[in-house]
Amino acid sequence: MAVSPSTYPRRLLPLFLGLFQGALLLFFALFVTYDEPSAQAEETNLVANQVYSTFPFFQDIQVMLVVGLGLLLTFLPRYGFSALTHNFLLLNFSMQWALVLQGLLHHFHHGQIHLDLHKLLISEFAAVTVLISVGAILGRASPCQLLIVATCEIPTYLASEWVIVTCLGVLDVGGTITIHVFSCYFGLGVSKALFRAMQQPLHPKETPTTSSDLMSLVGTLILWVFWPSFVAVLCQPGDAQHRAILNILLAMSASAVTTVVASSLLERDGKLSPGHLQNGSLAGGVAIGVVADMAMPPVAALALGSLSAVVCVLGFRFLTPLLGRKLTLHDQCGIHNLHGLPGILGAAASVVAVLVASKDTSGSQPSQLSPALCQAAGLAVAIGASLLAGLLTGAALRLPCLARPPERLCFDDSLYFKIQDQAESPGPDSSAEEGALALKEQV
Amino acid sequence: MAVSPSTYPRRLLPLFLGLFQGALLLFFALFVTYDEPSAQAEETNLVANQVYSTFPFFQDIQVMLVVGLGLLLTFLPRYGFSALTHNFLLLNFSMQWALVLQGLLHHFHHGQIHLDLHKLLISEFAAVTVLISVGAILGRASPCQLLIVATCEIPTYLASEWVIVTCLGVLDVGGTITIHVFSCYFGLGVSKALFRAMQQPLHPKETPTTSSDLMSLVGTLILWVFWPSFVAVLCQPGDAQHRAILNILLAMSASAVTTVVASSLLERDGKLSPGHLQNGSLAGGVAIGVVADMAMPPVAALALGSLSAVVCVLGFRFLTPLLGRKLTLHDQCGIHNLHGLPGILGAAASVVAVLVASKDTSGSQPSQLSPALCQAAGLAVAIGASLLAGLLTGAALRLPCLARPPERLCFDDSLYFKIQDQAESPGPDSSAEEGALALKEQV
Amino acid sequence: MAVSPSTYPRRLLPLFLGLFQGALLLFFALFVTYDEPSAQAEETNLVANQVYSTFPFFQDIQVMLVVGLGLLLTFLPRYGFSALTHNFLLLNFSMQWALVLQGLLHHFHHGQIHLDLHKLLISEFAAVTVLISVGAILGRASPCQLLIVATCEIPTYLASEWVIVTCLGVLDVGGTITIHVFSCYFGLGVSKALFRAMQQPLHPKETPTTSSDLMSLVGTLILWVFWPSFVAVLCQPGDAQHRAILNILLAMSASAVTTVVASSLLERDGKLSPGHLQNGSLAGGVAIGVVADMAMPPVAALALGSLSAVVCVLGFRFLTPLLGRKLTLHDQCGIHNLHGLPGILGAAASVVAVLVASKDTSGSQPSQLSPALCQAAGLAVAIGASLLAGLLTGAALRLPCLARPPERLCFDDSLYFKIQDQAESPGPDSSAEEGALALKEQV
Repeated sequence: MAVSPSTYPRRLLPLFLGLFQGALLLFFALFVTYDEPSAQAEETNLVANQVYSTFPFFQDIQVMLVVGLGLLLTFLPRYGFSALTHNFLLLNFSMQWALVLQGLLHHFHHGQIHLDLHKLLISEFAAVTVLISVGAILGRASPCQLLIVATCEIPTYLASEWVIVTCLGVLDVGGTITIHVFSCYFGLGVSKALFRAMQQPLHPKETPTTSSDLMSLVGTLILWVFWPSFVAVLCQPGDAQHRAILNILLAMSASAVTTVVASSLLERDGKLSPGHLQNGSLAGGVAIGVVADMAMPPVAALALGSLSAVVCVLGFRFLTPLLGRKLTLHDQCGIHNLHGLPGILGAAASVVAVLVASKDTSGSQPSQLSPALCQAAGLAVAIGASLLAGLLTGAALRLPCLARPPERLCFDDSLYFKIQDQAESPGPDSSAEEGALALKEQV
Repeated sequence: MAVSPSTYPRRLLPLFLGLFQGALLLFFALFVTYDEPSAQAEETNLVANQVYSTFPFFQDIQVMLVVGLGLLLTFLPRYGFSALTHNFLLLNFSMQWALVLQGLLHHFHHGQIHLDLHKLLISEFAAVTVLISVGAILGRASPCQLLIVATCEIPTYLASEWVIVTCLGVLDVGGTITIHVFSCYFGLGVSKALFRAMQQPLHPKETPTTSSDLMSLVGTLILWVFWPSFVAVLCQPGDAQHRAILNILLAMSASAVTTVVASSLLERDGKLSPGHLQNGSLAGGVAIGVVADMAMPPVAALALGSLSAVVCVLGFRFLTPLLGRKLTLHDQCGIHNLHGLPGILGAAASVVAVLVASKDTSGSQPSQLSPALCQAAGLAVAIGASLLAGLLTGAALRLPCLARPPERLCFDDSLYFKIQDQAESPGPDSSAEEGALALKEQV
Repeated sequence: MAVSPSTYPRRLLPLFLGLFQGALLLFFALFVTYDEPSAQAEETNLVANQVYSTFPFFQDIQVMLVVGLGLLLTFLPRYGFSALTHNFLLLNFSMQWALVLQGLLHHFHHGQIHLDLHKLLISEFAAVTVLISVGAILGRASPCQLLIVATCEIPTYLASEWVIVTCLGVLDVGGTITIHVFSCYFGLGVSKALFRAMQQPLHPKETPTTSSDLMSLVGTLILWVFWPSFVAVLCQPGDAQHRAILNILLAMSASAVTTVVASSLLERDGKLSPGHLQNGSLAGGVAIGVVADMAMPPVAALALGSLSAVVCVLGFRFLTPLLGRKLTLHDQCGIHNLHGLPGILGAAASVVAVLVASKDTSGSQPSQLSPALCQAAGLAVAIGASLLAGLLTGAALRLPCLARPPERLCFDDSLYFKIQDQAESPGPDSSAEEGALALKEQV
């Protein structure tokens, strides 16, 4: 399916996106409206207060997703522009698509769909799953393939979230199960079905440079700083939100310190690995999401943060290479280590937290086991549904019309962007090289 | 007027700035004070609430202007440090200058000038016009020339804003007409009068590199994220502000997606142009400003965002080269495509929105046409006043005392900063080269 | 004490940090808890309001410390990754350590320690002192040595802060005396005792490159934007906080402009020095902290901002080289110019402000001199205590078990991180060179 860079089909992207934007306009024209402005001063105050209490959180989350996550993905030295742009495009596309589907699914029976900041926030959360999932295939998939992933993942997410939260009543204020675990296994499913048993040898453009690692670390730090807003935005205002913020801060602080310990102990010469730092520092934030607003002592948040950092670093060191060898499972960004393992750990912690809480409040009634079982069931649903849907989506990505980038031009901005060649590559010869390369690949 | 780098007159800058700071201190000492602290608890609460409702927006705007816009301008690979510093310096100088002029103009008849956060915000808005305008001559003007631009533009802006908003009653909550359109044509006027019929051939230091394009894209993303704060900060709290935020988010999301479509369709090989992405994604934010808080359906925001992105990309592709050839109009950053065209589009949309709204509320009374006419008149005033003042300012920049940077050292940090030469240039020889170059230019 | 890179002891770091995390978990398990959730709706509202009024400031401060300060320290071109990571690690470690000590010192007599956002904020402030102090020895100390600095500095800070604020009643809402002056002289003490009379010749890896200077400037700009949140977070809500924000904005704006004037005048060719810009622009923020919420006219804030920028630039130009020559005092980041001199200036301004205020309110009673004396005494305590404790800490850093990085590998990421060599250095030979270098140093 590999094609030459010169004949690489780039028209599919504007076609697909253009049609989508047209359909979106039509949908909004027909069905979407704003709330009537409230006539009473009291209501106006209420709306104003809601804006002031939600909007700063919303902005923080936007910074995380657009700038933080975007920069985190720039660790591929020749793929930074693509990583930032694709992340940005996918966020917008997925959010719009989630708005449409949410409108159709939840609100259609009311006739008009009334848009508000809360609905945009929920759509943003849906979009996050896509941004995480595509980390598994970063650099080896075309923008069109990424959009197909988004197209398939958003409805699956909405369905799975509905089952987990509404039907099973799972408590998951920070989206640990519904977002992180779900998107991780969706992404792994896509990767498995897309690359099948193909071994992916180390690509020469895959190795980070100092400066790309530095940019990526800046992305991590931005994510780290604003993570509390992401987890706590939907908490009950007041004590619950306050406690959630504290729990998240403790967990992430413990994660940051423990990552250094774990990374240093695991490497033979005691040097720290940039990849561990970039991911491990955030692992606590993933794990704490599901228990952030539950009644638990501060030490539990610290312990969970430490443990998830350890699990994340161990995953990078041992599990990812193992999965690559045994299952030929390709996970470019290590989403399994950052979102999968800490997510499962958080889910397990939530089972314990719910068990303890129910014992505290109501003695040892057997019926109180059910909330804990529900948490576990929610985890199972998230993993099962996402893996299945991911595999199907990945199979769809192998359709002949969706050309994958040629192997030699993977991890390379120049395939998609009118961009100057970097200092490393010889200026004048590079297009000649591209041509020769294309020739080889066509043969 | 070109002078050698070694004799390049750099003393003018501290002289000018030093005198200004002295005058500022004098002005503040004589006329500016704070409000008396309120004695009553109720008033204290009121002030506290005002701080909490305005300050986060203010901080967001500061991030946009200082970090976001600064980074956006670093696309010139050897001029990044100058771009960031000049942007930062101009923001502070212009804000102080606007504070002084505002004090003199609006508040002098009350005796003392009472400073508050709202007045600082208004001055910040005035400063934005300068930051936009100088984009037209980025890299080819000296810091002193930029300060002269600021000195002339701020009073013109204040006068034009007074005519447009206070006299004509134009509705423009996000400054689309008063800020974006005004500053665009002011900048183009300056550029035209400064460079006249001089053709500006492509400078070797003008081409972005991958890493400078990446930094610039990060700047765009920061601007994109915080744009809603810029437009919505002066909206009526409550429903109007809530609706404005939603409109802006929709418009900018549509812009981001549509830019990819338009850029990909316009280039022959379907590759995306970094410049289109860096600017087109923001075009929706420029256009939506003037109608953000008006009563209009969400689809209008989406459509306006899409349309302005298309217009912006078309402008870069066709209009800028055309203006360069036919009118020898030099527009380094393409401010006409990002601020001019989408601004005019937004103004046109506001005419329609006002027409529709007045029909809805009061039938077909002929007198209701006047608000729509006022919007159009406001646009005309903004364009006319800014072009005229810009041309005059540009002519002033040709004064012999204001040396322009020598052509070969345009787009080069080393003219103004004690900075290491970059990897590309040979270290030891570069000062020799500078000297030789200077000799040639003196001849 | 210099050791070879291959045998460089890197196991101490995880050991130390691991033990600390264990102890932290134990401490939290035994003593730390959250407040009981409030039962009444009114109290819930109160907590919610506290979260909304403190949390955005807290986030701003996190951005400053993690991203802004981190980037500011990346001016060393081959040490960026270390600078960011060590800064991040030290922040987390110091904050946790401060939480423990604060718990033990202030709250132990209440039995349980009730954690809240305010206590986290206070711990964060304590951590800031460490981040500032280590700037004096940046690039020449190992992570373990930095952790020892943190371990010693936090208790000293808490004690000195208690004496200055609680015992002497010094007014210092922005931490000018308690944080900036204290941490500056602590850092200088450490540097003096660690390096003693050793001359530090210019290291080849010490010179910033254009791109490292650019990143560092971005860090400055982020600090500059969010500085008002840092100073104003603990102000009385309402008028005092409003006035403090205005004072800080004025001071920092004046600093930014004056830095350009001073730097340009001081250099022979009128070119601006990046180091001056990176530091001088922030000097106003350091100085204004102690008087930000006092009753003083706006012109005083402007004047203080200008003056502190001048002092900072003069310090870089004349004082730092002088101290280096005469006292062999090594100050890598110039913390004396950014935190020491402007801090002392601010303290002096606070003496004047307190004197004027007491005269205004109560005539010329001699007893009113005491608040002014207290401010001066606070400054003396901060300088004295920090210098003494710093010298002792620096002596402890010379313990043989705490290996300092070998001279040739100072300012080099590759000593601590599994990181690609940069473009400048030849790839394959560098480890051979490292080995040869190590050999030489062992001899």
